[in-house]
Amino acid sequence: MKNYVHKVNYYECDRMGVTHHSNYIRFMEETRIYAMEQMGYGFERMEAEGVVSPVTAISVNYKKPTTFPDEIEIELKVLEMSNLKMRFGYRMTVRGALVCTAESTHCFLEGGRPVVLEKRFPELYAKFKEIMDAQQ
Amino acid sequence: MKNYVHKVNYYECDRMGVTHHSNYIRFMEETRIYAMEQMGYGFERMEAEGVVSPVTAISVNYKKPTTFPDEIEIELKVLEMSNLKMRFGYRMTVRGALVCTAESTHCFLEGGRPVVLEKRFPELYAKFKEIMDAQQ
Amino acid sequence: MKNYVHKVNYYECDRMGVTHHSNYIRFMEETRIYAMEQMGYGFERMEAEGVVSPVTAISVNYKKPTTFPDEIEIELKVLEMSNLKMRFGYRMTVRGALVCTAESTHCFLEGGRPVVLEKRFPELYAKFKEIMDAQQ
Amino acid sequence: MKNYVHKVNYYECDRMGVTHHSNYIRFMEETRIYAMEQMGYGFERMEAEGVVSPVTAISVNYKKPTTFPDEIEIELKVLEMSNLKMRFGYRMTVRGALVCTAESTHCFLEGGRPVVLEKRFPELYAKFKEIMDAQQ
Repeated sequence: MKNYVHKVNYYECDRMGVTHHSNYIRFMEETRIYAMEQMGYGFERMEAEGVVSPVTAISVNYKKPTTFPDEIEIELKVLEMSNLKMRFGYRMTVRGALVCTAESTHCFLEGGRPVVLEKRFPELYAKFKEIMDAQQ
Repeated sequence: MKNYVHKVNYYECDRMGVTHHSNYIRFMEETRIYAMEQMGYGFERMEAEGVVSPVTAISVNYKKPTTFPDEIEIELKVLEMSNLKMRFGYRMTVRGALVCTAESTHCFLEGGRPVVLEKRFPELYAKFKEIMDAQQ
Repeated sequence: MKNYVHKVNYYECDRMGVTHHSNYIRFMEETRIYAMEQMGYGFERMEAEGVVSPVTAISVNYKKPTTFPDEIEIELKVLEMSNLKMRFGYRMTVRGALVCTAESTHCFLEGGRPVVLEKRFPELYAKFKEIMDAQQ
Repeated sequence: MKNYVHKVNYYECDRMGVTHHSNYIRFMEETRIYAMEQMGYGFERMEAEGVVSPVTAISVNYKKPTTFPDEIEIELKVLEMSNLKMRFGYRMTVRGALVCTAESTHCFLEGGRPVVLEKRFPELYAKFKEIMDAQQ
């Protein structure tokens, strides 16, 4: 899977002159969506089927500030897959230097109720599983 | 009707150290919603009935920069009401000094189709009309 | 110290109809700034003296979705104070129901170099310490 | 000059399920910055020389809603160049259909004072002029 690249926008930087820390959470979402696109399974397809994938937890470690017009390269890892949740890892670098590491945990809901990804979207599940296994 | 006050947040300021110009569009939305609340007609009530009110046009004149932690006082005017659209005016000041003027135009849609506000929400229409007339 | 209240804005909600998870990071910043104001020590005063306080880590647990026009009440706790970092805790509720818990860790920099808060801003340090001790 | 393409992000869509109207202002900024990059004159270079280019006015006409994951293609035009201001035009399309037109007006400031672009950055001025003339 290819890494995602987010080019920092001018308006994403704050008064300190650096990318506002809240924006990394958005870059993480962009990365997940990009990964699903690469798997041939766009996020909007899941949504169109009435399944949403809320974030239940995130943690972020900011290592170095970034700023406009840095290009942040983001590597996505699948850290955990269980019946009811998925956990992703993120490694962000700018010109090779580590700037941020992060994790996000997700569940899957349909009509407000938990969905077992493996049953509901076996194909997508298999692709994530394959990526996870390939990482090890 | 009372003026709305938006206190500029740290994260709303950009690398130049001033409130990013895109955020004023959001302050305008906050002002409209605040006005509807004061009329006893929350925006979410309109939405709950299946009517949305997209913005069809905006124009903004930036007079002076603002920054964190400025308090922007925003006066809302109803400039025009017709069958299919409403036009609002905004006058934004910080400690009495004019910082921004703006306008926004809106239509009303239900199930994707234009709605005549006066027929669909006569009570809300009457309140906006009253405000418009009181201004003159 | 009074709790901070953030009223969710329309534009802070996403396609799922709920507050986008990235925005909670911004509410956390608003809460810290509000706390400093209450201490009589506005954030801009620290900045004016050339000291910035970057976030080095955050973690957030999303318990329940919130949406426009919910009022999120945010309780700030000082969890840890050491020479080079501070750690805050956040407990967010809507009408009494827990919606989110979070933590953020910060350092203090002046001209790019670490600052010992206790030495550089003894008054501010004392106030945070007082709050931390009062919590226990 | 190549058109800029902004792929709508999930978090840029609102409760109505469409791109929030404030975000188009940001896409316009991205487009200007992309144009300057193509001219070999990155925006950060101007900023590094101490010159900033605040937006003094914008106007936007929203023609059709867009949503995630639409790709908005944005054509930039130079509408006006005078000693103290520049005015740009934007034409945004999705799969060929017009979704938005807009304009923005800018001045140039150095140390808070107006700068005559033609004198301060003759090379950049010449490039914009060339683009403007080529459009006609």
